[in-house]
Amino acid sequence: MNLWSIQKNGFNISDIEKHGSKYLLGNGFMGYRGTMEEYSAEQLVAINLAGFFDLADGSNWRESVNAPNPLYTVVSVGGVELNLSTLTSVSHNHMLDIKNGIHSRKTVFNVNGVNITIKAERFISMVKENIIALKYSVIADKDITVTIKTGIDKNIWNISGLHLNYVSEIAENDYLELNCETVELKNQLKVCEKVVGFDNINNDNLLHKSTVNLKKDEEFTFIKFGGIYHSESLKNSEKDFYNAVNIGYDSLLNEHISFWQKIWKNSDVIIEGDDEAQLALRYSIYHLCSIAPHNTDKCGIPARGLSGQVYKGAAFWDTEMFMLPFFQFTDAKVARNLLMYRINTLDGAKRKAKEFGFEGAFFAWESQETGDDACTLFNVTDIFTNRPLRTYFKDKQIHISADIVFAIWDYCRTTGDYTILTDGGLKLMYQCIWFFYTYSAFKPYKNRYELLDAVGPDEYHERVNNNAFTNVMVKHAADIFILAIDKVKKNNPEYFDKFDSDLTWAYDFAEKLYVPQPNKNGIIEQFDGYFKLEDVTPEILKTREIKKNEYWGGHGLASTTMTLKQADVVMMLNVFRNEYSKEIKKANWEFYEPYTEHGSSLSACAYAIVAAEIGKIDWAYKYFMKTASVDLTGDTKQYLGSLYIGGTHPAANGGAWNTAIFGFAGVSFTNDTLDISPRLPDNWNSLSFKLNWKGDKLNIKITGNKVDINGITNTKVTVYGEEYNK
Amino acid sequence: MNLWSIQKNGFNISDIEKHGSKYLLGNGFMGYRGTMEEYSAEQLVAINLAGFFDLADGSNWRESVNAPNPLYTVVSVGGVELNLSTLTSVSHNHMLDIKNGIHSRKTVFNVNGVNITIKAERFISMVKENIIALKYSVIADKDITVTIKTGIDKNIWNISGLHLNYVSEIAENDYLELNCETVELKNQLKVCEKVVGFDNINNDNLLHKSTVNLKKDEEFTFIKFGGIYHSESLKNSEKDFYNAVNIGYDSLLNEHISFWQKIWKNSDVIIEGDDEAQLALRYSIYHLCSIAPHNTDKCGIPARGLSGQVYKGAAFWDTEMFMLPFFQFTDAKVARNLLMYRINTLDGAKRKAKEFGFEGAFFAWESQETGDDACTLFNVTDIFTNRPLRTYFKDKQIHISADIVFAIWDYCRTTGDYTILTDGGLKLMYQCIWFFYTYSAFKPYKNRYELLDAVGPDEYHERVNNNAFTNVMVKHAADIFILAIDKVKKNNPEYFDKFDSDLTWAYDFAEKLYVPQPNKNGIIEQFDGYFKLEDVTPEILKTREIKKNEYWGGHGLASTTMTLKQADVVMMLNVFRNEYSKEIKKANWEFYEPYTEHGSSLSACAYAIVAAEIGKIDWAYKYFMKTASVDLTGDTKQYLGSLYIGGTHPAANGGAWNTAIFGFAGVSFTNDTLDISPRLPDNWNSLSFKLNWKGDKLNIKITGNKVDINGITNTKVTVYGEEYNK
Repeated sequence: MNLWSIQKNGFNISDIEKHGSKYLLGNGFMGYRGTMEEYSAEQLVAINLAGFFDLADGSNWRESVNAPNPLYTVVSVGGVELNLSTLTSVSHNHMLDIKNGIHSRKTVFNVNGVNITIKAERFISMVKENIIALKYSVIADKDITVTIKTGIDKNIWNISGLHLNYVSEIAENDYLELNCETVELKNQLKVCEKVVGFDNINNDNLLHKSTVNLKKDEEFTFIKFGGIYHSESLKNSEKDFYNAVNIGYDSLLNEHISFWQKIWKNSDVIIEGDDEAQLALRYSIYHLCSIAPHNTDKCGIPARGLSGQVYKGAAFWDTEMFMLPFFQFTDAKVARNLLMYRINTLDGAKRKAKEFGFEGAFFAWESQETGDDACTLFNVTDIFTNRPLRTYFKDKQIHISADIVFAIWDYCRTTGDYTILTDGGLKLMYQCIWFFYTYSAFKPYKNRYELLDAVGPDEYHERVNNNAFTNVMVKHAADIFILAIDKVKKNNPEYFDKFDSDLTWAYDFAEKLYVPQPNKNGIIEQFDGYFKLEDVTPEILKTREIKKNEYWGGHGLASTTMTLKQADVVMMLNVFRNEYSKEIKKANWEFYEPYTEHGSSLSACAYAIVAAEIGKIDWAYKYFMKTASVDLTGDTKQYLGSLYIGGTHPAANGGAWNTAIFGFAGVSFTNDTLDISPRLPDNWNSLSFKLNWKGDKLNIKITGNKVDINGITNTKVTVYGEEYNK
Repeated sequence: MNLWSIQKNGFNISDIEKHGSKYLLGNGFMGYRGTMEEYSAEQLVAINLAGFFDLADGSNWRESVNAPNPLYTVVSVGGVELNLSTLTSVSHNHMLDIKNGIHSRKTVFNVNGVNITIKAERFISMVKENIIALKYSVIADKDITVTIKTGIDKNIWNISGLHLNYVSEIAENDYLELNCETVELKNQLKVCEKVVGFDNINNDNLLHKSTVNLKKDEEFTFIKFGGIYHSESLKNSEKDFYNAVNIGYDSLLNEHISFWQKIWKNSDVIIEGDDEAQLALRYSIYHLCSIAPHNTDKCGIPARGLSGQVYKGAAFWDTEMFMLPFFQFTDAKVARNLLMYRINTLDGAKRKAKEFGFEGAFFAWESQETGDDACTLFNVTDIFTNRPLRTYFKDKQIHISADIVFAIWDYCRTTGDYTILTDGGLKLMYQCIWFFYTYSAFKPYKNRYELLDAVGPDEYHERVNNNAFTNVMVKHAADIFILAIDKVKKNNPEYFDKFDSDLTWAYDFAEKLYVPQPNKNGIIEQFDGYFKLEDVTPEILKTREIKKNEYWGGHGLASTTMTLKQADVVMMLNVFRNEYSKEIKKANWEFYEPYTEHGSSLSACAYAIVAAEIGKIDWAYKYFMKTASVDLTGDTKQYLGSLYIGGTHPAANGGAWNTAIFGFAGVSFTNDTLDISPRLPDNWNSLSFKLNWKGDKLNIKITGNKVDINGITNTKVTVYGEEYNK
């Protein structure tokens, strides 16, 4: 079993959509779906751009833009196009090298008794983020003349309308260029292409056409370079593109591979004894690294990565609560970029708070480039009436603002980098806590603040009161704000002096915000009145379905029952793992598990981690494999009502890493101490990984209960609670 | 045109349901539907009992009990039953005498060439509330032998299951008795029957059978007495029944008529010049008086009167806000009974508040004998899925508790009887205001209390924040509580001393409760965010319907639009008519009128009254006729989704009186002054009525703008704002 690549022999037309996501390439600037070079919009080709959005005419929502495809290539023999999706192949191999970030395919077609083999290899440069490159070969087992069309394909996948107007084209010999602008904001997008290796070229309609006489068994190879530019990168696009072309395919590839080597050096997690888990976890890490914003603090990570426009290319709480731990422990620069993106979109969050009658910062549920909320008030279509259904994701999922405050603080205390506070972090915290203060309801007769009419992680229960996750998250955010004030007051008094001097309200709010407590059985009620709902599990609800893909939320089947979409109380226990006893964790895990549908890919990892913590290693393993292999199996919900929600699942990818590290390795931390209390699955001989901890680069290897750590210099690390001594 | 009765010649089988309600008899203890003597359950026969409830096995809700029918009678000729619903009649006349409360019918059948005429007259005694009496005659135009079956029919209409177990039967000569008990609480119900006028009787299965030889054109007449007893009245039932029988039909009828004469003396409103309006208004008053609890403070008036079990026989806010004005001005004893019923059910209201996590008294949305809420959380069935739909009538329509506080105070200041405060009224007020205090959300940064997550009169918009009607109602209730405290402190210091001495919270709440104000156009927003909803009128929504009887509330068509079910802001302007200027009333009436569906019979009267106030007399007249004739035309919604909601509409009946008095006569009052500022429709020559005002019995006649008043002794009355001098 190859632990550094995935591949598939044979072809099934129904796999096109899934494999487009599964074999995805990305570099944070763009994602290139795992489609064949001869594919077009119908086969869901997309070069999905991070942080570049548009609203198409007549559409209800803005979404990320897919660029025209400069790698488009198709070979014809005697008028027959060698297109895998339409022509039966003799053999087909599809491969993704996750070690080096290389996509390749080898397909044999037979036309009139001649076997023609197509080999193609491509990568998106990790070093030069605007550049994609393709090496393409054709070989036949007889002498034959083929026609090759290669160029820029405008016919690309779009979910919600056409986003580009075509402003100008250039076609000069081996060079093509397409200049576009977006429909809504007239933002420029430039796609350029250069082909190397043809003797004769005719250009027509952004395609080079060439006739090639193949000699039996002699491989004909050509190279293509693509450049995608928008925003800042437009300025030097010409120079940048020719620079890449001049460097050449092999050198570009080498520097790309080197970059990946550096990534793996810091990020790889090695599982000995369980190849399946090893590949799944590594594949998850591959995805996280290939969509991370390495070079920008202007965009978040979309909920479906860069696999397409699903969920509008917007960033959700997924980033802060599921992916950020991985980055802050392995690549703090990316973590900081992600948090600075939130700081940079604070104005959008302030606009949103105002729109809904509050003050402060209410972050977007679905965040694009400005921080204004891309989420609509009607996010689902009622399957019974085909009418838009009022959902409360946008206006009631208030925990997002607390998640971000929490994440900034988590970043600070794990990396030791508190400069983000004075780079806008503290201001963001102020606005978020002020938002919650204005959102909250003070109950004088109870002398406490409550958070009413909210939606927690479990979206099947909208508009609930005192959702435990939300209240606890906000309570911590308020506490964090006070800690952060103290930190800045101490370290940057001159900065603090500019702050609002009267923070009485914040102290009062933090002190008196209601935090739901366990009942006599140790169970924390998910929200006020949850225990009074109909006692029904997902299995039973399933039998009540009338239509396929029925939406269980809204006024749907789950809304009046105890069935939850995803970890909610258990997610809270996972996030605040140091604050609840093993007994409380166990009681709640066992109580809520049967009611949880895991209808979101965010659910399994929380159950996995808490399961590990309470000694249910079998369950932890089951849920770990579920979260780690979600994009390998592609076995996820593809539709929510009539809404397509397929693609990659970076939150689950992050959840896989979280489970390995926090669950099995048993890593936890307080403000000053990192503890490792492993509980590995029986079949794992060892687990090795690296963590950046307040500047120390820890190199950790766990074998059974034995923990070896290198790299401790200035920090405190314990193993099973005892100070670690080598 | 007869202005004291309604009648119909001819028969249409599809009218059976409507006419059952239209020709209803009642005396506050029971209602007897306007069905034929030979009808049974299939023709919706019901003797609907006020304040007597049961939960049938397997049913989802409790409803009022219908008693077995002791007036059941059917005549057969040669084996053919003379049943209007199955046998074509030669002629049929159906009549309700609303002056005297008498139901009668005359039907001619033809069997084998012989015309047989059935005449029947019945009444429910206003004096002896357990007694119903029937005079029944048969006459044929040839000598003929008929068989008469008459007795107690158990086969009666039920909406939600069977409510009675039959415990014992007595059949002795001309006497029948059926003893039952309810399913849920084993409450006893006794039905007795006596027939007078037969020579020979065979009894079988609670039926007397008799064969009668009719001589050509000679009328055969017999009398039936029925007695219905439960609860208190059971004790002396035997004595009571035989007493009635001994008094005899004619004397019973005479005392019954005398009672109605007394009622009309105080309650009649005379419109000269508009017979149609006269009959409709009088018919409305007839209904109010025939279902009023004259002798008990143990039950309210059900939303469908005593016409059946629709809305579970429960009392709604309809009583306090739509019917109570009529009673407090014409029959204060009934008004006091109705309010004492609320005081007597305070414990149920306290249980409800607790159930939903609050303190104080949250009155039932649908109130039965204990004050526990008969309303379910699933009050409507989704027509697309046939699933129960979560509605928020029960847990969010909080204004009910304020409506009751308001009504008690209104009773006090119109009748001058403040003793109700120390008879429990003040305690009730305390509990209601404390409930609102615990329900409210204090917003420290705005220094105000808000009422979030409520449902106002417009039930199409559930779970809204700061519904203007609700906030204003609660604000007044809080103010009233403080006024009531002062009143009791002054008049009954010894009573007040037992009260909670620290009422700081109540003063704070009354002072700081947020009251939505008109915007720059004078419009008061129905609730936070209403103006942002889709700008769509009911006419347009109608075109979007997919299915008949679609429910527009819940997640239905109206919920995300500006279309409202019924007067909401306009209802508020109507209730607080002294507190808003004519300009504000006009602006809001004109703004909201096009968006109002009038999907509730509570809606038209509010629009009528405010229209009169702002000089739109034509509109006022249109909406007056709509509300006054609702039970005459029967032209109302019969279904809500799949839920049957037919029957009589006492709130609309009350609304008709309110419109005549407050709208056209222009009656309004402050704590010490009653003002009359008439604006009669052009075709009304005069309007005459009586009002009890703080003990004075005012006799008022309006002719054009001229007002004549008799009976002012100790009170202050003004006309168009000027003190009235005869």
